Amino acid sequence: MKVDLNCDMGESFGLFRLGHDEEMIRHISSANIACGYHAGDPHVMRKTVEMAKQHGVAIGAHPGFPDLMGFGRRYMTCTPDEIRDYVLYQVGALREFAASIKMELHHCKPHGALYMMAMQEEKIARAILEGLASVSDRMIVFVLKNSAMELVARQMGIQVAREVYADREHTKDGSIVLTRTGPAIQDYAQMAARVVRMVKEGIVVTPDGEEAEICAETVCIHADTPGAVELIRHIRQAFAEAGIAVEPVQGS
Amino acid sequence: MKVDLNCDMGESFGLFRLGHDEEMIRHISSANIACGYHAGDPHVMRKTVEMAKQHGVAIGAHPGFPDLMGFGRRYMTCTPDEIRDYVLYQVGALREFAASIKMELHHCKPHGALYMMAMQEEKIARAILEGLASVSDRMIVFVLKNSAMELVARQMGIQVAREVYADREHTKDGSIVLTRTGPAIQDYAQMAARVVRMVKEGIVVTPDGEEAEICAETVCIHADTPGAVELIRHIRQAFAEAGIAVEPVQGS
Amino acid sequence: MKVDLNCDMGESFGLFRLGHDEEMIRHISSANIACGYHAGDPHVMRKTVEMAKQHGVAIGAHPGFPDLMGFGRRYMTCTPDEIRDYVLYQVGALREFAASIKMELHHCKPHGALYMMAMQEEKIARAILEGLASVSDRMIVFVLKNSAMELVARQMGIQVAREVYADREHTKDGSIVLTRTGPAIQDYAQMAARVVRMVKEGIVVTPDGEEAEICAETVCIHADTPGAVELIRHIRQAFAEAGIAVEPVQGS
Amino acid sequence: MKVDLNCDMGESFGLFRLGHDEEMIRHISSANIACGYHAGDPHVMRKTVEMAKQHGVAIGAHPGFPDLMGFGRRYMTCTPDEIRDYVLYQVGALREFAASIKMELHHCKPHGALYMMAMQEEKIARAILEGLASVSDRMIVFVLKNSAMELVARQMGIQVAREVYADREHTKDGSIVLTRTGPAIQDYAQMAARVVRMVKEGIVVTPDGEEAEICAETVCIHADTPGAVELIRHIRQAFAEAGIAVEPVQGS
Repeated sequence: MKVDLNCDMGESFGLFRLGHDEEMIRHISSANIACGYHAGDPHVMRKTVEMAKQHGVAIGAHPGFPDLMGFGRRYMTCTPDEIRDYVLYQVGALREFAASIKMELHHCKPHGALYMMAMQEEKIARAILEGLASVSDRMIVFVLKNSAMELVARQMGIQVAREVYADREHTKDGSIVLTRTGPAIQDYAQMAARVVRMVKEGIVVTPDGEEAEICAETVCIHADTPGAVELIRHIRQAFAEAGIAVEPVQGS
Repeated sequence: MKVDLNCDMGESFGLFRLGHDEEMIRHISSANIACGYHAGDPHVMRKTVEMAKQHGVAIGAHPGFPDLMGFGRRYMTCTPDEIRDYVLYQVGALREFAASIKMELHHCKPHGALYMMAMQEEKIARAILEGLASVSDRMIVFVLKNSAMELVARQMGIQVAREVYADREHTKDGSIVLTRTGPAIQDYAQMAARVVRMVKEGIVVTPDGEEAEICAETVCIHADTPGAVELIRHIRQAFAEAGIAVEPVQGS
Repeated sequence: MKVDLNCDMGESFGLFRLGHDEEMIRHISSANIACGYHAGDPHVMRKTVEMAKQHGVAIGAHPGFPDLMGFGRRYMTCTPDEIRDYVLYQVGALREFAASIKMELHHCKPHGALYMMAMQEEKIARAILEGLASVSDRMIVFVLKNSAMELVARQMGIQVAREVYADREHTKDGSIVLTRTGPAIQDYAQMAARVVRMVKEGIVVTPDGEEAEICAETVCIHADTPGAVELIRHIRQAFAEAGIAVEPVQGS
Repeated sequence: MKVDLNCDMGESFGLFRLGHDEEMIRHISSANIACGYHAGDPHVMRKTVEMAKQHGVAIGAHPGFPDLMGFGRRYMTCTPDEIRDYVLYQVGALREFAASIKMELHHCKPHGALYMMAMQEEKIARAILEGLASVSDRMIVFVLKNSAMELVARQMGIQVAREVYADREHTKDGSIVLTRTGPAIQDYAQMAARVVRMVKEGIVVTPDGEEAEICAETVCIHADTPGAVELIRHIRQAFAEAGIAVEPVQGS
């Protein structure tokens, strides 16, 4: 049994440092790397792909809205065409840094408000996917189960990986609850056990106490979750005990 | 006898329109496309590569300093490492749009203050060229004759094309005179004849009245030069009469 | 009988020129000046306030979302606190240029998507108005009749001027129809007559053919409306014939 | 005996946190507040002026180059006119937040590369000072002793305060040594004693071991100097022991 662990990386910008990349990179299998629009800059991108290569971590593009001041967390009513082009721009920029060290882009996962829009609105999902399909037939797209993004990707024959969150609550339909705060559970061991259950049984308990069926092909943990480094260590420990290997997801 | 005609393109940004791309594209063989730092945005980049493909014009990256307000014309004391990464970022972004319509990047020509720095400072030239060499072995770099950029490129075995300017004065050593105003000649036919002589004889008359030896492998005309469209038409007419074909340069 | 004619101004940015400010300024009484977020830069702002002073035109701040690429026309889900601070930042920057030539800010009119949000959402309107009230007790706020902005401003005792549009359709309730295209009427004389009727009778015909009661304390014409210069000349001509004076609105 | 202690503040941007403002503010008398170009955003500016008011700290504008990615530390060859307008823009934006809580701007101190250019180049100094003089006759300008900025300010009758640095080396002529690293002295008590001597005797020992005559009307300590909080505590302690009061400088 195996699963992918992904984390947002490379979110520093110029002199501004963000996240605990050096720590987190040791524990994950896939890095979602910011591409300069909501976070990240060219110098940070280079350092991050180099670090990922050094640790054998798969590189993914993490494009966002052009909103550095809001960290890409604010919805912007861009057209699908604009969004497709913003995504291609960022993906291409990251691909160049990957190419410069003989790496390929393994996946793409939109960031923040763009992620939620892509999961919820078919037009946005389609625009992004058509953009990605025009430049690669190998990139895997990370999706929420049953989202617009998953639906359209499957129609188009694009490989996806269904994602769950170690540090967010899930709804009955497998989506995530839109808060910036994590689940009520504050105990790392309990949170790790919850993730193990997601992976092994495909079950997570919702805030209402119901069991939701999910599909954990890749598990996200946010680098800026308080205690993220502690949490991911507990998760890796729990995975080791449960015989779950951590490696880049292959898409389906 | 043949020569390349290059022009800066895709310098619009959002609602802001700049240049006469639709006119100029009909007359050139190589387009230097802005990449979003000093001008251009993702949507403009897509439209510009599509237009270039439609007209059989070779696509080149035209990276600049991150200075939209100054249009990349102001020197910034960035480190060579920063500059290398700014160039890769922009080149990669443009390459993605080219790839999305099955086109390749033909050349790279830095913009504005970055161009002048790359021609003058060996450290900057080397940083840019090492960056480009890490991602491609086919891109041609546009250089001023005898510039730091040409020297380092030849040391590194990178193909270059030596550039002259239809709308700028040249110095005795083949460099260009740093003004925003064109040569004193205001007559299009005379300016066209001057370009023909550059191409056929490798000679241009400097502002001091001396003849300078140059090497016109690619001829640049700025889209924002007053009367640029008229001028390029005259140049094409003069080329036709002189039996000079216009096609993308192959590098040497 | 008199009315205010307002127009967006100072929307150029760096090398990018936008609008026909030099022409339009001769015909208006109030300039809404972009403040560097969606358009405008410090140099343009200085030139624009100087031009307004020279023509005896009242200066207003025209703050927008931090979205130069989208010209402030895209909704951004910023918090009311963020929006209040974005507005203050921009208003203050413009006020400094006005102060440097001994001018005061006459009014404030949010731009684009921020304008529509302020008219529609009470929380946004209140945040902006509380911000403005904290720095001035004299600035007039331009509002759509019966909008959230008008309501809250009247509650707070802030002076408003009700605005109609020379180049947009209006709805039955006096709001404007959200398109980027103007009214079906393409004849300048007809459009000018329509504006005269708005001012004299407080009546405009909606796209459905109904008569809507409006209140034309200030009339906006967009500088980027095709034929804007022609249109405003016709309006001024029609005003002259109808005995309508054009001067900065005083607020109520 | 008294002196001013100033520190750069409000350098966070969006989600990106920088500096130890909450700690430093307790120990200083003047805050140089970033204005959104090289650092800071409107929300951060508001919080910072509020914090300054709460602690009785004087508010100064800290304008920089429009270079967030480089934190304003890279020289940009802007024209004096452009620089004057960039400064006014930023000063005005900050003044608005100060006004909104009934505070005035006490001083202005350019940031980073703009600071060094203003101290070294008379044209830049003059442009900035003419801009400031057009909007206020009370703002004090922080200067290096004998700098272009001091000279021009005295010619123009603008009040200045001569500045020394607690965490930088000084040259024989009272300027600072352009490195990002502080003085060789690593001992907080020694550094504090050095500052006390600067204030009491107007003497600092240069890296060459010579005594330089300086004039410490305001002492700067950088918030991002490693151990800045420890250092400033030691300085305050040493000041207390030496009978030196800390309060906003009055200019001369």
